[in-house]
Amino acid sequence: MTHQPVTYIMDGMTDWLTETEQRHWRRFLSMQNRLMGQLAAHLQAEAGLSMPDYDVLVPLSEAPAGRLRSTELLAVTCWEKSRLAHHLTRMEKRGLIVRETRADDSRYSDVLLTQQGRAAITSAAPKHAAHVRSWFVEALTPEELATLGELSDKITERLGEATPTCPID
Amino acid sequence: MTHQPVTYIMDGMTDWLTETEQRHWRRFLSMQNRLMGQLAAHLQAEAGLSMPDYDVLVPLSEAPAGRLRSTELLAVTCWEKSRLAHHLTRMEKRGLIVRETRADDSRYSDVLLTQQGRAAITSAAPKHAAHVRSWFVEALTPEELATLGELSDKITERLGEATPTCPID
Repeated sequence: MTHQPVTYIMDGMTDWLTETEQRHWRRFLSMQNRLMGQLAAHLQAEAGLSMPDYDVLVPLSEAPAGRLRSTELLAVTCWEKSRLAHHLTRMEKRGLIVRETRADDSRYSDVLLTQQGRAAITSAAPKHAAHVRSWFVEALTPEELATLGELSDKITERLGEATPTCPID
Repeated sequence: MTHQPVTYIMDGMTDWLTETEQRHWRRFLSMQNRLMGQLAAHLQAEAGLSMPDYDVLVPLSEAPAGRLRSTELLAVTCWEKSRLAHHLTRMEKRGLIVRETRADDSRYSDVLLTQQGRAAITSAAPKHAAHVRSWFVEALTPEELATLGELSDKITERLGEATPTCPID
Protein backbone atom coordinates (compact mmCIF):
# COMPACT_ATOMS: atom_id res chain seq x y z
CA MET A 1 0.00 0.00 0.00
CA THR A 2 1.37 3.37 -0.99
CA HIS A 3 0.90 6.34 1.31
CA GLN A 4 -0.02 8.81 -1.37
CA PRO A 5 -0.68 12.31 -0.06
CA VAL A 6 -4.18 13.69 -0.45
CA THR A 7 -3.91 15.84 -3.54
CA TYR A 8 -6.01 18.95 -3.81
CA ILE A 9 -4.80 19.84 -7.26
CA MET A 10 -4.91 17.10 -9.83
CA ASP A 11 -1.62 16.38 -11.54
CA GLY A 12 -1.49 17.08 -15.23
CA MET A 13 -4.98 18.47 -15.32
CA THR A 14 -4.47 22.15 -14.76
CA ASP A 15 -1.57 24.53 -14.91
CA TRP A 16 -2.98 26.75 -12.21
CA LEU A 17 -0.30 25.71 -9.72
CA THR A 18 3.28 24.79 -10.49
CA GLU A 19 4.69 21.58 -9.09
CA THR A 20 6.57 23.52 -6.39
CA GLU A 21 3.51 25.52 -5.43
CA GLN A 22 1.43 22.32 -5.21
CA ARG A 23 4.04 20.74 -2.96
CA HIS A 24 4.06 23.62 -0.49
CA TRP A 25 0.26 23.84 -0.54
CA ARG A 26 0.00 20.13 0.24
CA ARG A 27 2.53 20.41 3.06
CA PHE A 28 0.46 23.20 4.62
CA LEU A 29 -2.83 21.40 3.99
CA SER A 30 -1.65 18.14 5.47
CA MET A 31 -0.37 19.89 8.60
CA GLN A 32 -3.53 21.94 9.00
CA ASN A 33 -5.80 18.90 8.53
CA ARG A 34 -3.94 16.85 11.07
CA LEU A 35 -3.37 19.59 13.64
CA MET A 36 -6.99 20.74 13.65
CA GLY A 37 -8.27 17.16 13.48
CA GLN A 38 -6.17 16.09 16.41
CA LEU A 39 -7.11 19.12 18.52
CA ALA A 40 -10.80 18.52 17.74
CA ALA A 41 -10.60 14.80 18.57
CA HIS A 42 -8.96 15.48 21.92
CA LEU A 43 -11.35 18.31 22.81
CA GLN A 44 -14.28 15.98 22.12
CA ALA A 45 -12.81 13.05 24.03
CA GLU A 46 -11.56 15.06 27.02
CA ALA A 47 -14.32 17.66 27.41
CA GLY A 48 -17.26 16.60 25.21
CA LEU A 49 -16.96 19.85 23.24
CA SER A 50 -16.58 20.48 19.51
CA MET A 51 -14.28 23.17 18.13
CA PRO A 52 -17.33 25.32 17.18
CA ASP A 53 -18.57 24.96 20.80
CA TYR A 54 -15.17 26.22 21.90
CA ASP A 55 -15.33 29.16 19.47
CA VAL A 56 -18.58 30.27 21.11
CA LEU A 57 -17.79 29.46 24.75
CA VAL A 58 -14.44 31.26 24.96
CA PRO A 59 -15.60 34.75 23.94
CA LEU A 60 -18.67 34.34 26.19
CA SER A 61 -16.49 33.33 29.13
CA GLU A 62 -14.39 36.47 28.61
CA ALA A 63 -17.36 38.83 28.27
CA PRO A 64 -18.72 40.78 31.29
CA ALA A 65 -21.34 38.61 33.07
CA GLY A 66 -20.86 35.97 30.36
CA ARG A 67 -23.19 37.89 28.03
CA LEU A 68 -22.75 38.92 24.40
CA ARG A 69 -25.13 40.20 21.73
CA SER A 70 -25.66 37.62 19.02
CA THR A 71 -24.28 40.18 16.55
CA GLU A 72 -21.04 40.31 18.56
CA LEU A 73 -20.75 36.52 18.41
CA LEU A 74 -21.31 36.74 14.66
CA ALA A 75 -18.36 39.12 14.40
CA VAL A 76 -15.95 37.13 16.55
CA THR A 77 -16.73 33.73 15.02
CA CYS A 78 -16.89 35.08 11.47
CA TRP A 79 -19.64 32.52 10.67
CA GLU A 80 -22.70 32.80 8.46
CA LYS A 81 -25.75 34.03 10.40
CA SER A 82 -27.70 30.77 9.84
CA ARG A 83 -24.75 28.65 10.96
CA LEU A 84 -24.50 30.58 14.23
CA ALA A 85 -28.26 30.36 14.82
CA HIS A 86 -28.29 26.57 14.30
CA HIS A 87 -25.26 26.05 16.46
CA LEU A 88 -26.67 28.18 19.30
CA THR A 89 -29.90 26.14 19.19
CA ARG A 90 -27.93 22.94 19.69
CA MET A 91 -25.83 24.47 22.48
CA GLU A 92 -28.96 25.74 24.23
CA LYS A 93 -30.48 22.23 24.17
CA ARG A 94 -27.31 20.93 25.79
CA GLY A 95 -27.58 23.53 28.55
CA LEU A 96 -24.34 25.36 27.67
CA ILE A 97 -25.93 28.72 26.86
CA VAL A 98 -29.32 30.45 26.95
CA ARG A 99 -30.72 33.10 24.63
CA GLU A 100 -32.69 36.15 25.79
CA THR A 101 -34.56 38.58 23.61
CA ARG A 102 -33.17 42.07 24.19
CA ALA A 103 -35.45 44.37 26.20
CA ASP A 104 -34.43 47.39 24.11
CA ASP A 105 -34.91 45.76 20.71
CA SER A 106 -36.91 42.55 20.35
CA ARG A 107 -35.42 41.84 16.90
CA TYR A 108 -32.12 40.95 18.57
CA SER A 109 -31.08 38.55 21.30
CA ASP A 110 -28.31 38.20 23.86
CA VAL A 111 -26.43 34.97 24.40
CA LEU A 112 -25.62 34.05 28.01
CA LEU A 113 -23.18 31.49 29.32
CA THR A 114 -24.85 29.10 31.80
CA GLN A 115 -23.16 27.75 34.90
CA GLN A 116 -22.82 24.44 33.07
CA GLY A 117 -21.29 26.19 30.06
CA ARG A 118 -18.75 27.96 32.24
CA ALA A 119 -17.85 24.71 33.96
CA ALA A 120 -17.35 23.05 30.56
CA ILE A 121 -15.02 25.71 29.17
CA THR A 122 -13.13 26.06 32.47
CA SER A 123 -12.43 22.34 32.44
CA ALA A 124 -11.61 22.13 28.72
CA ALA A 125 -9.33 25.14 28.28
CA PRO A 126 -6.20 24.05 30.18
CA LYS A 127 -6.09 20.67 28.41
CA HIS A 128 -6.64 22.29 25.04
CA ALA A 129 -3.91 24.85 25.74
CA ALA A 130 -1.51 22.07 26.69
CA HIS A 131 -2.11 20.36 23.32
CA VAL A 132 -1.57 23.62 21.45
CA ARG A 133 1.70 24.04 23.32
CA SER A 134 2.83 20.49 22.68
CA TRP A 135 1.85 20.13 19.00
CA PHE A 136 2.20 23.68 17.68
CA VAL A 137 4.29 26.01 19.85
CA GLU A 138 6.98 23.49 20.79
CA ALA A 139 7.32 22.20 17.21
CA LEU A 140 8.95 25.52 16.30
CA THR A 141 11.59 27.88 17.65
CA PRO A 142 10.31 31.27 18.95
CA GLU A 143 11.62 32.88 15.74
CA GLU A 144 9.85 30.32 13.54
CA LEU A 145 6.63 30.83 15.49
CA ALA A 146 6.83 34.59 14.86
CA THR A 147 7.49 33.95 11.17
CA LEU A 148 4.46 31.67 10.95
CA GLY A 149 2.39 34.42 12.60
CA GLU A 150 3.56 36.96 10.01
CA LEU A 151 2.92 34.66 7.05
CA SER A 152 -0.53 33.88 8.49
CA ASP A 153 -1.35 37.59 8.62
CA LYS A 154 -0.35 38.03 4.97
CA ILE A 155 -2.81 35.32 3.94
CA THR A 156 -5.55 36.73 6.19
CA GLU A 157 -5.08 40.16 4.64
CA ARG A 158 -5.38 38.62 1.20
CA LEU A 159 -8.59 36.86 2.27
CA GLY A 160 -9.90 40.13 3.68
CA GLU A 161 -9.69 41.64 0.22
CA ALA A 162 -11.80 38.76 -1.10
CA THR A 163 -14.48 39.06 1.62
CA PRO A 164 -14.52 42.63 2.96
CA THR A 165 -17.57 42.00 5.17
CA CYS A 166 -15.74 39.76 7.59
CA PRO A 167 -13.53 41.67 10.08
CA ILE A 168 -9.80 41.04 10.10
CA ASP A 169 -8.58 40.54 13.66
CA MET B 1 -19.07 46.65 18.86
CA THR B 2 -15.53 45.45 19.29
CA HIS B 3 -14.04 42.93 16.88
CA GLN B 4 -12.43 40.77 19.49
CA PRO B 5 -10.47 37.84 18.03
CA VAL B 6 -11.72 34.36 18.80
CA THR B 7 -9.56 33.31 21.70
CA TYR B 8 -8.58 29.70 22.07
CA ILE B 9 -6.64 30.20 25.25
CA MET B 10 -8.38 32.12 27.96
CA ASP B 11 -6.53 35.17 29.23
CA GLY B 12 -5.49 35.08 32.83
CA MET B 13 -6.71 31.57 33.30
CA THR B 14 -3.72 29.44 32.42
CA ASP B 15 -0.03 29.98 32.07
CA TRP B 16 0.32 27.25 29.43
CA LEU B 17 0.98 29.78 26.66
CA THR B 18 2.75 33.10 26.99
CA GLU B 19 1.09 36.20 25.60
CA THR B 20 3.38 36.12 22.56
CA GLU B 21 2.71 32.44 21.91
CA GLN B 22 -1.03 33.06 22.18
CA ARG B 23 -0.80 35.88 19.71
CA HIS B 24 0.99 33.80 17.07
CA TRP B 25 -1.34 30.85 17.64
CA ARG B 26 -4.36 33.09 17.14
CA ARG B 27 -2.88 34.60 13.97
CA PHE B 28 -2.39 31.11 12.56
CA LEU B 29 -5.81 29.93 13.75
CA SER B 30 -7.67 32.89 12.33
CA MET B 31 -5.95 32.45 8.95
CA GLN B 32 -6.58 28.73 8.87
CA ASN B 33 -10.27 29.11 9.84
CA ARG B 34 -10.92 31.71 7.20
CA LEU B 35 -8.87 30.12 4.41
CA MET B 36 -10.39 26.67 4.84
CA GLY B 37 -13.86 28.11 5.41
CA GLN B 38 -13.69 30.22 2.28
CA LEU B 39 -12.36 27.35 0.14
CA ALA B 40 -15.12 25.07 1.48
CA ALA B 41 -17.86 27.65 0.86
CA HIS B 42 -16.74 28.19 -2.73
CA LEU B 43 -16.35 24.46 -3.44
CA GLN B 44 -19.90 23.92 -2.21
CA ALA B 45 -21.37 26.84 -4.13
CA GLU B 46 -19.49 26.21 -7.37
CA ALA B 47 -19.43 22.41 -7.52
CA GLY B 48 -21.83 21.08 -4.88
CA LEU B 49 -18.96 19.26 -3.16
CA SER B 50 -17.73 19.37 0.43
CA MET B 51 -14.03 19.36 1.30
CA PRO B 52 -14.32 15.73 2.54
CA ASP B 53 -15.91 14.81 -0.82
CA TYR B 54 -12.90 16.41 -2.48
CA ASP B 55 -10.48 14.48 -0.24
CA VAL B 56 -12.04 11.22 -1.45
CA LEU B 57 -12.63 12.10 -5.12
CA VAL B 58 -9.14 13.36 -5.92
CA PRO B 59 -7.15 10.23 -4.95
CA LEU B 60 -9.80 8.09 -6.71
CA SER B 61 -9.52 10.18 -9.86
CA GLU B 62 -5.74 9.66 -9.85
CA ALA B 63 -5.91 5.89 -9.20
CA PRO B 64 -5.79 3.39 -12.09
CA ALA B 65 -9.36 2.79 -13.36
CA GLY B 66 -10.62 5.10 -10.59
CA ARG B 67 -10.41 2.25 -8.07
CA LEU B 68 -8.85 2.12 -4.59
CA ARG B 69 -9.10 -0.30 -1.70
CA SER B 70 -10.98 1.22 1.20
CA THR B 71 -7.82 0.68 3.30
CA GLU B 72 -5.89 2.85 0.83
CA LEU B 73 -8.48 5.61 1.16
CA LEU B 74 -8.15 5.30 4.92
CA ALA B 75 -4.42 5.91 4.62
CA VAL B 76 -4.61 8.89 2.26
CA THR B 77 -7.42 10.68 4.08
CA CYS B 78 -6.03 9.92 7.54
CA TRP B 79 -9.60 9.64 8.88
CA GLU B 80 -11.11 7.34 11.48
CA LYS B 81 -12.50 4.13 9.93
CA SER B 82 -16.09 4.91 10.97
CA ARG B 83 -15.88 8.44 9.57
CA LEU B 84 -14.74 7.11 6.18
CA ALA B 85 -17.47 4.44 6.15
CA HIS B 86 -20.21 6.99 6.89
CA HIS B 87 -18.91 9.42 4.35
CA LEU B 88 -18.66 6.77 1.61
CA THR B 89 -22.29 5.76 2.31
CA ARG B 90 -23.41 9.33 1.73
CA MET B 91 -21.30 9.67 -1.43
CA GLU B 92 -22.66 6.39 -2.79
CA LYS B 93 -26.25 7.64 -2.29
CA ARG B 94 -25.34 10.75 -4.28
CA GLY B 95 -23.98 8.62 -7.12
CA LEU B 96 -20.39 9.84 -6.82
CA ILE B 97 -18.84 6.45 -5.98
CA VAL B 98 -19.80 2.78 -5.70
CA ARG B 99 -18.43 0.14 -3.35
CA GLU B 100 -17.65 -3.43 -4.39
CA THR B 101 -16.79 -6.29 -2.08
CA ARG B 102 -13.39 -7.66 -3.06
CA ALA B 103 -13.47 -11.03 -4.84
CA ASP B 104 -10.27 -12.17 -3.10
CA ASP B 105 -11.34 -11.17 0.43
CA SER B 106 -14.97 -10.46 1.25
CA ARG B 107 -14.03 -8.66 4.47
CA TYR B 108 -12.73 -5.74 2.40
CA SER B 109 -14.20 -3.55 -0.32
CA ASP B 110 -12.98 -1.47 -3.23
CA VAL B 111 -14.20 2.06 -3.85
CA LEU B 112 -14.85 3.03 -7.48
CA LEU B 113 -15.31 6.47 -8.98
CA THR B 114 -18.53 6.67 -11.05
CA GLN B 115 -18.82 8.64 -14.29
CA GLN B 116 -20.79 11.22 -12.33
CA GLY B 117 -18.08 11.36 -9.66
CA ARG B 118 -15.40 11.91 -12.29
CA ALA B 119 -17.45 14.67 -13.93
CA ALA B 120 -17.88 16.36 -10.53
CA ILE B 121 -14.19 16.39 -9.65
CA THR B 122 -13.13 17.36 -13.20
CA SER B 123 -15.42 20.36 -13.05
CA ALA B 124 -14.52 21.34 -9.48
CA ALA B 125 -10.73 21.06 -9.55
CA PRO B 126 -9.75 23.99 -11.82
CA LYS B 127 -11.93 26.44 -9.87
CA HIS B 128 -10.62 25.15 -6.56
CA ALA B 129 -7.02 25.43 -7.80
CA ALA B 130 -7.64 29.01 -8.91
CA HIS B 131 -8.82 29.91 -5.40
CA VAL B 132 -5.78 28.25 -3.82
CA ARG B 133 -3.59 30.29 -6.15
CA SER B 134 -5.39 33.54 -5.46
CA TRP B 135 -5.78 33.28 -1.66
CA PHE B 136 -2.73 31.25 -0.63
CA VAL B 137 0.07 31.11 -3.21
CA GLU B 138 -0.16 34.72 -4.36
CA ALA B 139 -0.41 36.06 -0.79
CA LEU B 140 3.26 35.10 -0.31
CA THR B 141 6.56 35.39 -2.16
CA PRO B 142 8.04 32.10 -3.48
CA GLU B 143 10.54 32.19 -0.58
CA GLU B 144 7.81 32.73 1.99
CA LEU B 145 5.79 29.88 0.48
CA ALA B 146 8.78 27.56 0.83
CA THR B 147 9.26 28.70 4.44
CA LEU B 148 5.61 27.99 5.21
CA GLY B 149 6.06 24.53 3.70
CA GLU B 150 9.08 23.86 5.94
CA LEU B 151 7.36 25.10 9.11
CA SER B 152 4.33 22.97 8.22
CA ASP B 153 6.52 19.88 7.95
CA LYS B 154 8.00 20.55 11.38
CA ILE B 155 4.53 20.61 12.93
CA THR B 156 3.45 17.51 11.00
CA GLU B 157 6.53 15.66 12.26
CA ARG B 158 5.66 16.67 15.80
CA LEU B 159 2.09 15.41 15.30
CA GLY B 160 3.46 12.17 13.91
CA GLU B 161 5.19 11.51 17.21
CA ALA B 162 1.84 11.98 18.98
CA THR B 163 -0.09 9.65 16.63
CA PRO B 164 2.35 7.16 15.10
CA THR B 165 -0.41 5.17 13.35
CA CYS B 166 -1.24 7.89 10.86
CA PRO B 167 1.25 8.10 7.96
CA ILE B 168 3.25 11.29 7.44
CA ASP B 169 3.19 12.34 3.80
